[in-house]
Amino acid sequence: MSKTVVALAGLGTIGAGLAKLLCENPAAGKVLRLKSVLVRDLSKPRALPHGTIVSNKASEIVEDPEVDVVVEALGGVESAFAVVESALKAGKHVVTANKNLLAEKGPELFALARQKGVSLGFEASVCAGIPIIRTLREALRAETILSVEGIVNGTTNYILTRMSENASSYTDALREAQEKGYAEPDPSYDVSGKDAACKATILTSLAFGHFFPTDRIRTSGISNLDSQDVSQAEAMGYRIKLIAAARRTKNGQVDVEVAPVLLPKEHPLASVRLEYNAVLVDSTGLGLTLYSGKGAGPAPTAVSLLADLMDVAQGRALLVEEENGFLHRQENFECDRTQLERFYIHLSVPDLPGVLAKVAGVLAAQGVSLASVLQPEVKSDAEGLVPLILTTHQAQRGRLDAALAELGKEGWGKGVVLRIQDV
Amino acid sequence: MSKTVVALAGLGTIGAGLAKLLCENPAAGKVLRLKSVLVRDLSKPRALPHGTIVSNKASEIVEDPEVDVVVEALGGVESAFAVVESALKAGKHVVTANKNLLAEKGPELFALARQKGVSLGFEASVCAGIPIIRTLREALRAETILSVEGIVNGTTNYILTRMSENASSYTDALREAQEKGYAEPDPSYDVSGKDAACKATILTSLAFGHFFPTDRIRTSGISNLDSQDVSQAEAMGYRIKLIAAARRTKNGQVDVEVAPVLLPKEHPLASVRLEYNAVLVDSTGLGLTLYSGKGAGPAPTAVSLLADLMDVAQGRALLVEEENGFLHRQENFECDRTQLERFYIHLSVPDLPGVLAKVAGVLAAQGVSLASVLQPEVKSDAEGLVPLILTTHQAQRGRLDAALAELGKEGWGKGVVLRIQDV
Repeated sequence: MSKTVVALAGLGTIGAGLAKLLCENPAAGKVLRLKSVLVRDLSKPRALPHGTIVSNKASEIVEDPEVDVVVEALGGVESAFAVVESALKAGKHVVTANKNLLAEKGPELFALARQKGVSLGFEASVCAGIPIIRTLREALRAETILSVEGIVNGTTNYILTRMSENASSYTDALREAQEKGYAEPDPSYDVSGKDAACKATILTSLAFGHFFPTDRIRTSGISNLDSQDVSQAEAMGYRIKLIAAARRTKNGQVDVEVAPVLLPKEHPLASVRLEYNAVLVDSTGLGLTLYSGKGAGPAPTAVSLLADLMDVAQGRALLVEEENGFLHRQENFECDRTQLERFYIHLSVPDLPGVLAKVAGVLAAQGVSLASVLQPEVKSDAEGLVPLILTTHQAQRGRLDAALAELGKEGWGKGVVLRIQDV
Repeated sequence: MSKTVVALAGLGTIGAGLAKLLCENPAAGKVLRLKSVLVRDLSKPRALPHGTIVSNKASEIVEDPEVDVVVEALGGVESAFAVVESALKAGKHVVTANKNLLAEKGPELFALARQKGVSLGFEASVCAGIPIIRTLREALRAETILSVEGIVNGTTNYILTRMSENASSYTDALREAQEKGYAEPDPSYDVSGKDAACKATILTSLAFGHFFPTDRIRTSGISNLDSQDVSQAEAMGYRIKLIAAARRTKNGQVDVEVAPVLLPKEHPLASVRLEYNAVLVDSTGLGLTLYSGKGAGPAPTAVSLLADLMDVAQGRALLVEEENGFLHRQENFECDRTQLERFYIHLSVPDLPGVLAKVAGVLAAQGVSLASVLQPEVKSDAEGLVPLILTTHQAQRGRLDAALAELGKEGWGKGVVLRIQDV
């Protein structure tokens, strides 16, 4: 049997890791051959087997008639899109780890792959260390999914774990994550929830058969949490985790959200620590299943890219079909703000008589009733404000937001509002 | 595209559940058609779609030239073997949930499937609610596996959870499990560890490429544990779980064991509760990955059988290859008793001076040194014996067993010996 011929676009950490696996892994070597590599800078020395073609011209690599499958490991969106599009147009299978590319251009690329009758593998794009894409596409393909909830960003989970276990401040935990290489020098993409929202778009396409554009997903990050929120949550029996959640609501819609959530300590995702990721799926036949592992990193990413490549080599790669969720764009997707949820609210308020009555009154006017109130005995901050921590009974998010907007007119400090999830 | 034609052998709970899915699931209905069913008793009424052939003659069903794939849902070994063997001989693909069949006859059946160039799907045979077979065969197929450890028996996990969380005795927890349908009226197959050992044979074949016969796997069950063991383990920061473990040892061998183990509470398997199962895999590229879900039950089993059937229908079922672990029987497999481990020991000893000195002396003579000693202040039992609970520093199992054999000559009560695992 002749080997499947691979062209690799990009030789950064991930591309180089994959090239090494392709050359050294015995299972890979039996069925795959790395023919050529696309790089930006031809002058750099490259550790590649003798005879590997190295080029900086995409067309040379991608349109080579002998090439069966192109791996996109460039990162970014624009140049990655150009390479993937031309590979698909040339009738090549494509394998990518690029979540941004799929979250932005997935619908176009999957439509093109479908038209050309080729496969587009993306196991490595979400939680590279966990075979969650494959599981949703294969093991659960005849299941009706009720919800997908995941800790899909290792950076934020590392920070939240340190805040919880070491009582670190957000700033200290972030600095430690940066020192250990779990957070970028500019961490905003991760801590804002944007990374998790891209992954939510991809997971939701698989689980619910519709493409929910990332910029329409209600997204909040972790940078406004402080150690008091984490310790207060602990005291109440909860852990704060950044959760990407897509759930079928009572009216049959799908609600997608990325936000820090208070999870009960017994919740399967509550014990996922440090840089680990996990995805919890609820489906009709299997019930709850949990998949957990390292979120990212060059080694897991290369392994997942390789698994997709071996599917191509063994003729087992799933072709893009009409039911592919990326092909069904949910244009008028709106968050459902009428569902009943419980909330944790941390306000900064003046240390004056009547403030609590005012807050409770505004919330009550919107039908939001309080389950607990905590005004810890602390000195007021530079602006004369003290924390006021509330939890609510079940309430509609929309009405809670209206109440908070009303309170916001007072010009007090920012508020933290987190959903409380019960198991 | 013509649909893949299915014959179903066995219409018990699982067979009937699958038949229902085949008729009602839209994804299944697109690619699969249930043609015929093999039953024992033709006179029973059956809820099957009009036109389904019902027969009590295996050859009619299995050798039907129109049938593409046979599902074995008979249970047991002998009649299941006959049906699967004749189906494979007739060149049909086979899908089964039968762990006993594979643990006993796997080598013969996979050899036959390989010879005939057909697939033998068995996702439902181990932890039916978790796609672990598929994960090991596909996502991790280019990985070098270092260890596979699992809670693979829901009955024993339910009993141990109740003993731990409710301080129930073994007898009470077993009775409750029986009342809830998690344990059979005769629970011996589960509580002895035999069920877990069959699953260990199957998982090990996939993970390590060799078939370790079930009867050669060192197996111990949970029926000699009492509530004192569970509470004492808790007090030391551990939970007792029945673990099926296959690990590559320092000398490159694979050690396979089924036994109750003391896991630290932070261990990923320690928080798997009640009837849930979980498998923790350590591999070179991905590191630790955890897969968790419901162990068994008709619905998960039917879903897993269906996923295998859809692989056949989509031409994606993995053919049996030369590397298939079932084809490489590990004839001279011996447990490695020289590895260093820590142990928990619960002895029943006379409440007399000098006994502790004797025990410690015999252990010391075998190089087993004690980490902790607990002789709780309790009344002696009917035979005048009191509990003595010890933990050891790292010791060789072989030498510990020699010491315990020496102590056994004293004719004291039975001893419980459990491995203590550190994360």
